[in-house]
Amino acid sequence: MERKKIAIIGVGLMGGSLALRLHEKKLSSKLIGVEANIENAKAAIELELIDEILPIDKAIETSDVIVLAIPVDAAVALLPNLLNKIDQQIVFDLGSTKSQLTDVVKNHPKRGRYVATHPMWGTEYSGPAAAVASAYQNKAAVICNAGDSDEDALQWVKGMYQKIGMRILEMEAHAHDLHAAYISHISHITSFALANTVLEKEKEEDAIFELASAGFESTVRLAKSNPTMWVPIFLQNKENVLDVLNEHIEQLTKFKIAIQSDRADKINTLIDNANKIKKIIK
Amino acid sequence: MERKKIAIIGVGLMGGSLALRLHEKKLSSKLIGVEANIENAKAAIELELIDEILPIDKAIETSDVIVLAIPVDAAVALLPNLLNKIDQQIVFDLGSTKSQLTDVVKNHPKRGRYVATHPMWGTEYSGPAAAVASAYQNKAAVICNAGDSDEDALQWVKGMYQKIGMRILEMEAHAHDLHAAYISHISHITSFALANTVLEKEKEEDAIFELASAGFESTVRLAKSNPTMWVPIFLQNKENVLDVLNEHIEQLTKFKIAIQSDRADKINTLIDNANKIKKIIK
Repeated sequence: MERKKIAIIGVGLMGGSLALRLHEKKLSSKLIGVEANIENAKAAIELELIDEILPIDKAIETSDVIVLAIPVDAAVALLPNLLNKIDQQIVFDLGSTKSQLTDVVKNHPKRGRYVATHPMWGTEYSGPAAAVASAYQNKAAVICNAGDSDEDALQWVKGMYQKIGMRILEMEAHAHDLHAAYISHISHITSFALANTVLEKEKEEDAIFELASAGFESTVRLAKSNPTMWVPIFLQNKENVLDVLNEHIEQLTKFKIAIQSDRADKINTLIDNANKIKKIIK
Repeated sequence: MERKKIAIIGVGLMGGSLALRLHEKKLSSKLIGVEANIENAKAAIELELIDEILPIDKAIETSDVIVLAIPVDAAVALLPNLLNKIDQQIVFDLGSTKSQLTDVVKNHPKRGRYVATHPMWGTEYSGPAAAVASAYQNKAAVICNAGDSDEDALQWVKGMYQKIGMRILEMEAHAHDLHAAYISHISHITSFALANTVLEKEKEEDAIFELASAGFESTVRLAKSNPTMWVPIFLQNKENVLDVLNEHIEQLTKFKIAIQSDRADKINTLIDNANKIKKIIK
């Protein structure tokens, strides 16, 4: 693939990690960062994630490809204006919700230049210092409403994701948001709520520190995730998130009732059913 | 430390992994397995976890130290009989609940030979094939009601845990069961319930397989755990488990209400609070 000048709007965990991968795979001739947070902008330069920081208009003008790597509420606000300003550049985003973003530019004259994507990768950390060169590999990159994108833009984005080690899945935006609620968003709510539960019940912080096993650390890991990223995801995907959250509360209530009534057989059945996840994950 | 003849009752994940560590650290002159499941007994020999399999009475007679590495309901049933049969051997167990087990032998004439322990290590797998030589390291080993154990038995067990890389914590059994419910048992229920939620909502198993990210895998990992081990833990620790489970359902309900009413500020506060776990874990 021909190297391109790539502007990344938001040089945090997601954007910064992508910058490292784009460079590593020789996909960029220049990496430009757009970053509102001055500390993060400085760090992104110092960590050599990008070549330079530019104001957004200058960055758009200078680039062949523009990546939106900002929280999903900021992306919904910015994308239409961004499409107003571009010529033939390719624009794609990395957000965890896709319906509102695709809706807001549905009838935009430059809609074709935009590719709606969600690479299923992340960590519980945030900011440019959390960027890792091993990011994105061996995970799925979902492309939504691919038919609304121009063929050249779509092909470049697909080729880029494949080159950084991802497998491509195509899906309609509303189907994506449903699956994302079931598989990704609920895990985060569970983990945040688990952390709050333990912090509420376990008044001895030393006990948490001393007794925490690998099991606890693994279920509570996502609770370190950043509210700036996650609050707008839950709100944009409200209906699906509430639907799966209700089911989750119901499933916990089944455990509660079975334990309350000393029904070993029922607890056993619940765990047996949960064990089916083994066949699907690893 | 002088090498000892050690019998391990139950050569699965926990007992098998301990066998590997005892050998590695030159703590055993002989490793004897007692295993009711014939397949597991055969596997434990083939995997060279132990030197030989013996019937329980023969194993007790031949050993200096006896380890109980069976589910907590089986341990409560077996421990009094085991203490009836021993002379000066040291007995300890690895179970995740400690109140019922210490209660059941409280007034036993051989109580002093028994050390109640809970090494805070495990994986979501089970059986001898899941045993790993890297087990138990850098985690806490809790010793309960240490004052009820004979000094020589207590010192040997402590020395052994330190030698295999664990730090020792002493605690009363009821305090242990409370902390274990908060920090370990609730994580398992959360993970089982999350797996059941996703399996219930996501009818397309392919979607789970394709879209699963590291975040989902980490929160759902414990859902692969074995019901034979976990059902009796939840029932033996019923009051504490229900207490923390009620809190967990309440915490999830807070997310539900905040999302339902589009309260970004409230969701933000909930996540900010959950983020405090960062200061405690790593």
